[in-house]
Amino acid sequence: MANTTRAWHLKSRPSGMPAAENFELKEAPLPDLGEGMVRVRNSWLSVDPYMRSRMNDVKSYVPSFKVGEPMDGGAVGKVVESRSPHLREGETVFHMQGWREEAVGPAGQFNKVPPIAVEDHQWLGNLGLTGATAYFGLLRIAEAKEGDVVFVSAAAGAVGSAVVQIAKAKGMTVIGAAGGEEKVAWVRELGADHAIDYKAGPVVQALTRAAPDGIDVYFDNVGGDHLDAAFAAARQNARFAICGMIDSYNGGEPPAFRYIMRVIAARIMIKGFIYTHFLPQIGDFYRDMGQWVASGEVKSRETVRDGLEAMPEAFLDLFRGANIGKMLVKL
Amino acid sequence: MANTTRAWHLKSRPSGMPAAENFELKEAPLPDLGEGMVRVRNSWLSVDPYMRSRMNDVKSYVPSFKVGEPMDGGAVGKVVESRSPHLREGETVFHMQGWREEAVGPAGQFNKVPPIAVEDHQWLGNLGLTGATAYFGLLRIAEAKEGDVVFVSAAAGAVGSAVVQIAKAKGMTVIGAAGGEEKVAWVRELGADHAIDYKAGPVVQALTRAAPDGIDVYFDNVGGDHLDAAFAAARQNARFAICGMIDSYNGGEPPAFRYIMRVIAARIMIKGFIYTHFLPQIGDFYRDMGQWVASGEVKSRETVRDGLEAMPEAFLDLFRGANIGKMLVKL
Repeated sequence: MANTTRAWHLKSRPSGMPAAENFELKEAPLPDLGEGMVRVRNSWLSVDPYMRSRMNDVKSYVPSFKVGEPMDGGAVGKVVESRSPHLREGETVFHMQGWREEAVGPAGQFNKVPPIAVEDHQWLGNLGLTGATAYFGLLRIAEAKEGDVVFVSAAAGAVGSAVVQIAKAKGMTVIGAAGGEEKVAWVRELGADHAIDYKAGPVVQALTRAAPDGIDVYFDNVGGDHLDAAFAAARQNARFAICGMIDSYNGGEPPAFRYIMRVIAARIMIKGFIYTHFLPQIGDFYRDMGQWVASGEVKSRETVRDGLEAMPEAFLDLFRGANIGKMLVKL
Repeated sequence: MANTTRAWHLKSRPSGMPAAENFELKEAPLPDLGEGMVRVRNSWLSVDPYMRSRMNDVKSYVPSFKVGEPMDGGAVGKVVESRSPHLREGETVFHMQGWREEAVGPAGQFNKVPPIAVEDHQWLGNLGLTGATAYFGLLRIAEAKEGDVVFVSAAAGAVGSAVVQIAKAKGMTVIGAAGGEEKVAWVRELGADHAIDYKAGPVVQALTRAAPDGIDVYFDNVGGDHLDAAFAAARQNARFAICGMIDSYNGGEPPAFRYIMRVIAARIMIKGFIYTHFLPQIGDFYRDMGQWVASGEVKSRETVRDGLEAMPEAFLDLFRGANIGKMLVKL
């Protein structure tokens, strides 16, 4: 019997907002379990905004999905068959063969979870890509430090909610922006000193009220009007860590910036980044974030969808703002 | 007799592009020549794009001009009367009491020119604010180094032409953008490897042709479509020094950026700066630039207007692109 697994395939490339028709669920071949390989049954699958750029046929920091082939992404699972001395059956691993039920590959492609007592799905959230992105972006790229005033966009999202809490754990003043009352309430619950509802009025006005003396750091997940508001509010030598610009992922009018000239007067430093750049320092992240998660200082919240069939809609819902915290699919 | 001098005053604040009616030439009082003070007769006056922001009533890195009061800016002159042991009559000085014929103040406000044999007006150009802005922006902010591919906007202007030549002196590949055939020809003459005429078509297309493998450094004097083209062409870890955004100084539609998302994928670093931040290192600049100017490795060109009356038009012509190299007024 040929080895196969059910996996989501890219059926066609979207222009603008993707739709269900761009995805197709079908059987995908799995390689034979050769020497040194393992088979993993996935239990949690991640959907992340950065996957949108992988649907385009352009050179970027992660390879594009190929039309007609299985998609991939973050996943957590359990080893169900092993021909490697490095992984035993029953061990929990996180890896990049998501969007599917089972994964087969060399043991080196699967990471045994570190010895930190957290729920499995945390390896896709606060202790995974999103947490590490928040940690390194805030502390290494923006060099945020105790006493700084930090503005975070998409503060109720997976990355943003981690940024809010790391900043509070480090003694910063935090202003988080989110859309709608429920999200804003959660941003407050996370410890933010001020929470802005961007659906209630112009961000620039709300930010100026929340931070009358300006901001030292901006952590950008959104781009557009949020980034422009940060330009307007920046103090001298402000630092902007640019993590994402979800406002522009699906095309539309190019964003315009009324306050971009303040880059000069306020000597703003802006830097784009991808967390993988910091993989050599991942030990720092596990040490700090492991403690914060274990002590409850950093909390998480998930928006969970059930079953492999739910993947495309869970992904599309990221761009509709339907998630609070990390969006996950449970198999 | 009261001491006075003819000086340009700010008559009213412009909204959008300034006009002659915003300026008024009239007598301004000069302080008595107290102990430790000198009187200087100006011979060269500088007009610079950054002065536009000083016409607005906003907090910025240099204080705003005040309505009804004399304007100021870079100037070179000769001491005609001295009550200070530090400056003798006949000595050449550069200082910030421009926009007027004579200046009086404590000797410490006037800088004796360093012992470098150049024409007086160079202290307002390649050896003055514009040269230092080019030098520190390129080498310290963008950390440009031998072998880098450097894109410079307004490359026929005062700052841009210095950037082109410093970059060539340091072994970089240079692409300069300017408007119109005469300017483009001069940018080539300065040693640029490629010169783009932004009036001849979209900058992004011309830049992609000139730098098919991308750029490492962008020195921005313009903003708008030039900055967007730099986003599009940026290589991994590109550095952008933001010196000016003349496209936006006079208002109009906020600039829109189609390629700004590349900040993330290419991990671009963008930093605004003002050369005064580097005053403690000005010795490095005089040493290097002094040699380059003396050896002819860095050339200058000036657009010179005659007489104090010509100041406002010379200033306004900066925004009409009427200057090649440094715009100066000779008294």
